[in-house]
Amino acid sequence: MARQPGSRATVRAIAAEAGVSIATVSRVMNGQANVAPDTRELVRRAVARLGAPAPARRGTASGAIYVRCPYVLTDYFGVIVSSIAETLDLYGRRLVLSAGDAARELQVLGDLPADPAIAGAILVVPPEPERDLEALRAADFPFVVVDPRTPLPQDIASVSAANLIAARTVSAHLVDLGHRRIGVIGGPGDWLASQSRLAGHTSALADAGVLPSPELLRSIEPTADWGYDAACQLLDLPERPTALVAFNDKAAVGALRAAYERDLRVPEDLSITGFDDIDLSRSTVPRLTTVRQPLEEMGRMAVSLLMRLLDRHTVDALHVELATQLVLRGSTGPVPVPEAGGPVT
Amino acid sequence: MARQPGSRATVRAIAAEAGVSIATVSRVMNGQANVAPDTRELVRRAVARLGAPAPARRGTASGAIYVRCPYVLTDYFGVIVSSIAETLDLYGRRLVLSAGDAARELQVLGDLPADPAIAGAILVVPPEPERDLEALRAADFPFVVVDPRTPLPQDIASVSAANLIAARTVSAHLVDLGHRRIGVIGGPGDWLASQSRLAGHTSALADAGVLPSPELLRSIEPTADWGYDAACQLLDLPERPTALVAFNDKAAVGALRAAYERDLRVPEDLSITGFDDIDLSRSTVPRLTTVRQPLEEMGRMAVSLLMRLLDRHTVDALHVELATQLVLRGSTGPVPVPEAGGPVT
Repeated sequence: MARQPGSRATVRAIAAEAGVSIATVSRVMNGQANVAPDTRELVRRAVARLGAPAPARRGTASGAIYVRCPYVLTDYFGVIVSSIAETLDLYGRRLVLSAGDAARELQVLGDLPADPAIAGAILVVPPEPERDLEALRAADFPFVVVDPRTPLPQDIASVSAANLIAARTVSAHLVDLGHRRIGVIGGPGDWLASQSRLAGHTSALADAGVLPSPELLRSIEPTADWGYDAACQLLDLPERPTALVAFNDKAAVGALRAAYERDLRVPEDLSITGFDDIDLSRSTVPRLTTVRQPLEEMGRMAVSLLMRLLDRHTVDALHVELATQLVLRGSTGPVPVPEAGGPVT
Repeated sequence: MARQPGSRATVRAIAAEAGVSIATVSRVMNGQANVAPDTRELVRRAVARLGAPAPARRGTASGAIYVRCPYVLTDYFGVIVSSIAETLDLYGRRLVLSAGDAARELQVLGDLPADPAIAGAILVVPPEPERDLEALRAADFPFVVVDPRTPLPQDIASVSAANLIAARTVSAHLVDLGHRRIGVIGGPGDWLASQSRLAGHTSALADAGVLPSPELLRSIEPTADWGYDAACQLLDLPERPTALVAFNDKAAVGALRAAYERDLRVPEDLSITGFDDIDLSRSTVPRLTTVRQPLEEMGRMAVSLLMRLLDRHTVDALHVELATQLVLRGSTGPVPVPEAGGPVT
């Protein structure tokens, strides 16, 4: 499709207004990570003052983007959706939101392709079975999946964290500290993220010559309450683990409480790790060793992929995995000497 | 406006499908609180199966609802927006979302009345000055403000928590425990909620014959990091307060950390209170005494008010304040005896 004349002038005007290069504006608009936050903010403010480069700039029909996130918008899902909202705004696209736990029951995907007001969709951890996503793809409707629950076919675009390598790095850190008996407070068993992280964990342990033990694994809904219950079970095993890896920071906070109630000092008697690096992980005593998930970048990358699909650009790598970062804080330490780490029965 | 024939059949069908009365369906649709969660869920599932009562049911033109929440959708704002999303879905209304910190810079209110796709708006803690909201009202555009920053004229609909009485109840609880020297980690000075809560606090202290002391007040952005800094300042005063009341749970968590670093036991040496009752408040050690804000109900009530405005129904009480609940947990206790509570210099 031909580009509209004048479209570059808008990007140029934004660049001039923000005092940055056109390439920088382009990088921000494309959701690329290699832009300093301050610079990104400059561009955002310029866009706010001058107005977004309108849909015409993109050579596509206008139309809103349907964002389906059928969960409560907590510190995790809310950050992803906020980032999607900010990035869509840069593209001058409206965001139609379906969110909240009640939305999980809705059958909406089938109606999207026929809706003239909707140009594309971003589906966050969609609960739908794979065949529904395949049907949507077959209808030639542009959409991107954030953090898929199940492995997707190659031609369905998705963005997720590099879960396997992230979990492998966490467990390798614990193995390096001498831990061998590690309890796993895993996510829901049917989530791809849970399975990938478990695989990362077992691979790190296998490198140290340790095979997985089913008695050390619990699968939970990733909340503090569920994390507490799972940690209680694991810490009350006849042979207590010396470390717990939790599916997310909230579950790790529940594990901290279970340790506290058993007079186990963290990290002297027990190491605990989280996942996500939400604010909470810096507020606990001790602060949590965790994995920083690029939640905002997941949102930006999802929008960027979707805009390219809308433009009918070639997209070669439809499955994007974003790197994570191990964040070492006070909740992990060397394995306790046998006297302290033995059974508590 | 005449109701469409058949519109009642839809509500009736939902009632039959859910196995509840038509009045119950109506209560759920109107966002009223006096419905058990399980029953509400039954109605939601029936709506999910049968489809929502279409806009025709309401005798108004269809059109999306613009939700402006120019903040990251964290555990606080995200819960409100999720509830708005779920409730709008029950009405068969689309939600157009503008969210994220970057959205604060956008000048969007002026364009809303002329937008044929938008029927009304819900503005969550709008950063705009009062005159912008008055201009929107003068344009006869239906909108509801959730948690206004500034006092609004009588003819602008708003929903908020009953902040003054809530804060008064918290401080009265501390006064009852013998506390007189209470540090206040308050919210931003220009927020109505901050001012109302401070007034509640000073009124409770005044009942005990204590006048407010400026040295005991800090105004912060309501995050754990800011809460930590403010608590450090207050705890390092020559005459240390025996209790801290925080603007929200996150700030209270920062205060817990400041106490921990000073070897102050909570609540034996220092009482700390939060506000909001987000998940976090049940995960700390000790658990936080806090105030439960009806965040979901704020969302439901905002939608309900807006639907009545769209229907041109008479709405007498345009300013709705929802009751809160004091939640007593482990972070508050009797004022320490002078030896333990004295200066730490």
